[in-house]
Amino acid sequence: MGSLDIKQESTPLMTNPLDPEEFRRQGYMVIDFLAEYYKNIEKYPVRSQVEPGYLRKRLPESAPYNPESMETILKDVQKDIVPGLTHWQSPNYFAYFPSSGSTAGLLGETLAAGFNVVGFNWISSPASTELESIVMDWLANMLSLPKSFTFSGGGGGVMMGTTCEAILTTITAARDALLDQIGRDNINKLVIYGSDQTHCSFFKSAKIAGISPKNFRTVKTSRAHAFALKPESLRAAIEADVNAGLIPLFLVATVGTTSTAAVDAVGPLCDVAKEYNMWVHVDAAYAGNACICPELRHMIDGVEKADSFSFNAHKWFLTTLDCCCLFVKDPDSLVRCLSTNPEYLKNKATDTQQVVDYKDWQITLSRRFRALKMWLVLRSYGVDYLRNFLRTHVDMAVYFEQMVTMDKRFEIVVPRSFSLVCFRLSAAAVLQYSGQKFIEEETLNDLNSELLESINSDGRIYMTHSLVDGIFMIRFAVGATLTEIHHVTYAWKLVQEHTSAILARRIRNL
Amino acid sequence: MGSLDIKQESTPLMTNPLDPEEFRRQGYMVIDFLAEYYKNIEKYPVRSQVEPGYLRKRLPESAPYNPESMETILKDVQKDIVPGLTHWQSPNYFAYFPSSGSTAGLLGETLAAGFNVVGFNWISSPASTELESIVMDWLANMLSLPKSFTFSGGGGGVMMGTTCEAILTTITAARDALLDQIGRDNINKLVIYGSDQTHCSFFKSAKIAGISPKNFRTVKTSRAHAFALKPESLRAAIEADVNAGLIPLFLVATVGTTSTAAVDAVGPLCDVAKEYNMWVHVDAAYAGNACICPELRHMIDGVEKADSFSFNAHKWFLTTLDCCCLFVKDPDSLVRCLSTNPEYLKNKATDTQQVVDYKDWQITLSRRFRALKMWLVLRSYGVDYLRNFLRTHVDMAVYFEQMVTMDKRFEIVVPRSFSLVCFRLSAAAVLQYSGQKFIEEETLNDLNSELLESINSDGRIYMTHSLVDGIFMIRFAVGATLTEIHHVTYAWKLVQEHTSAILARRIRNL
Repeated sequence: MGSLDIKQESTPLMTNPLDPEEFRRQGYMVIDFLAEYYKNIEKYPVRSQVEPGYLRKRLPESAPYNPESMETILKDVQKDIVPGLTHWQSPNYFAYFPSSGSTAGLLGETLAAGFNVVGFNWISSPASTELESIVMDWLANMLSLPKSFTFSGGGGGVMMGTTCEAILTTITAARDALLDQIGRDNINKLVIYGSDQTHCSFFKSAKIAGISPKNFRTVKTSRAHAFALKPESLRAAIEADVNAGLIPLFLVATVGTTSTAAVDAVGPLCDVAKEYNMWVHVDAAYAGNACICPELRHMIDGVEKADSFSFNAHKWFLTTLDCCCLFVKDPDSLVRCLSTNPEYLKNKATDTQQVVDYKDWQITLSRRFRALKMWLVLRSYGVDYLRNFLRTHVDMAVYFEQMVTMDKRFEIVVPRSFSLVCFRLSAAAVLQYSGQKFIEEETLNDLNSELLESINSDGRIYMTHSLVDGIFMIRFAVGATLTEIHHVTYAWKLVQEHTSAILARRIRNL
Repeated sequence: MGSLDIKQESTPLMTNPLDPEEFRRQGYMVIDFLAEYYKNIEKYPVRSQVEPGYLRKRLPESAPYNPESMETILKDVQKDIVPGLTHWQSPNYFAYFPSSGSTAGLLGETLAAGFNVVGFNWISSPASTELESIVMDWLANMLSLPKSFTFSGGGGGVMMGTTCEAILTTITAARDALLDQIGRDNINKLVIYGSDQTHCSFFKSAKIAGISPKNFRTVKTSRAHAFALKPESLRAAIEADVNAGLIPLFLVATVGTTSTAAVDAVGPLCDVAKEYNMWVHVDAAYAGNACICPELRHMIDGVEKADSFSFNAHKWFLTTLDCCCLFVKDPDSLVRCLSTNPEYLKNKATDTQQVVDYKDWQITLSRRFRALKMWLVLRSYGVDYLRNFLRTHVDMAVYFEQMVTMDKRFEIVVPRSFSLVCFRLSAAAVLQYSGQKFIEEETLNDLNSELLESINSDGRIYMTHSLVDGIFMIRFAVGATLTEIHHVTYAWKLVQEHTSAILARRIRNL
């Protein structure tokens, strides 16, 4: 061995990008920035009011050659980024389904980014894998899921980014298990089922998995049945397919649909699907969170008959985006299909088969340490508070619904579920105000659309819409962490104000 | 409208989970925790030394009913989680490909989690979409990608979690574009191509997309050609398939393979693939980062002929996990295949067709505001520093390689590319030490495996291995942010120490 008088030069650099003291200094600045953001959040228009292309006009055409200070950058975040945000954390945010953040969730994400481990298999960071298995079992208990969805019962849970990934993962596993039996040539015969209220990501996932789009069944629901998928409708659809020589593969039953928070009856649907050996996934992306409350748990009754169950903890469980919790009864069905074992990932722990390698339970290899933020949320707030937190939101939705009901200009389109109220300006009200005898459904829809846009453009609150059975309705979704009862009162006052203005303008224009 | 004397109760709660002052207090604590973690990181064994199941023995069986303080939780993070981490941010981490964190990347992730916007379409948070498009164009310029991969050139970039998603997205787009022409019945005829060095996630993605596993071609490479995919080998594989009535769909050319950082010649491979109208994706997950250095840019020469290009900024660009940057020439090919347009997501901005809705460029609907951390990294460090940062790592690998070369007990298995050195204890050395005349390749592999495990168990540094052409080799990957030249010297000293001990033990045992 020679001496070490060999090339050892390295370009002199500024402070290392992970220098602890510089990290601490800048870290405090960012924490302060966010604390001020939350303090002032009600001052910003909830839905961003910028025009398309606003940011390109403000930023340079290329990345800077030289470093800039965090002070300068944070000033620009305030000046250039904040106006372009739609403020999901605003207490006046009632759009889509909210995405609930919290101190514990956010700081859990920060800790995870700080450790920056890549937990694809056990050895790559045992704590990442083990904490995930443990908190998933905790959640299963909180949701009173059957033991078969827990690790001690032979099943288990895994954290992903979104429900889209959970569904793609389970469809793929179900598809390959079936094709292994019947042969790959039958891939174009496989049929998947949901209702016309099922989230679009189910059909997109099926498409990605190579299921033929002509075999996507969106079984019709109706307002009369609160937009729930009826078991007899499902059966009729399946039988028609079987008679046509097709092969039923997969059903998504939704608890808490996107448009109206409708609840499919999981048990009876599973009974039908299981006659045809289908995989049943229960998508409770939004409403599943609330099922930790014993009084709401019945909404997922029958889940013990399903193969998999998922909810998005980033929607209503204070974890911040992203965090989808997927529980499966038969993890081997995922592993059989999704396992990879290249030499560069081989290790003794995997060889013992005594550890979970989560890369084989999901689409991607690399994965963040999401369990940390869930652990921080569960410990910082505790089960009792979390239940009460969710109940407060449901109570506020009940309160809003009561106010809608008391104003005769409005109607509730479907009875409230969970914390979502679906309402609209009613035909009767418009007729009364305009003195007309009849109003087309389309005209009524346009009027409601106009009302919603008027409210949202104003910027003080933000709601979104959906269309069910041809009815344009406004969705009022309570779920932002900072929302309190007075925000709901205020929102309702704004709805009334805009309604009065629109009806007055309309009458003038008649 | 009646009075508001209706149900307005809400369970009294503790401080709101987003209370600004409480957030600030806890935020400082977490920043301090991480600053101390970085200060002390060299004290921890790099590869975690816990046994499988260690954490379940330490944690309670269910989530706590009552809240616990952040002080208590952070103590437990230190006590229960830190020992179970494999310290990817340690300067003594040389395993897999590192995942480079930084103050700017980590605080960018914190800011994004703090805003907690869900940027699935433009209106849901215009800044999220627009900043992403802008920084992707900046990156395209830094990489000297052709204009066709930028928004102004008709292409564009999108940020995902991992390369797995980038590949699944592009395979799906390519698959459906082709099946739309030739009919879905041909799905089982589609063939995908990579080399035997291509990352396993390519084949996994193809499997998820419903491509028949019997149509996965892993074209053989050789040590003589530095494990690069040879265009003539690719052509032979394609022609055999075409002659057998199969249909070439997709090629992944890798710049910087996982085992040895081998570089496929992108241009010549594209020339072959384009004769057969295949989609070519360039996977530069690791090495793509370094191509912002003009002297390394030639490694991706020919990329202008490819359809898509991706690199993982979380690997070697200071952004922290996760951040895959995907550039495509024809975003419409993604949108045609992956677009969804349910009523509840309809909005005026989308209707104008003047905005990007990134949900249609990717697998999932929900997406984090990843552009923020990239923007913070680019501005905090600047192009010049970033290049020098990468060069420092390459220099350190050169230095390590020189030391390996000077110690006659070792051989370099393949010439170094970028910052990865592949080496092993050589047959000649073992023979000399043992006085034997011959050593089986398997015995030599076992010896190298023993050496690596001995080093890793010691905990002071961490490296991983791969197997190429039957050769077990040790991979020394420089890329952790805190690594300095003295860590490399130290690592080499440890390798030498363990080698001497193992060879001595072996000779005793003869």
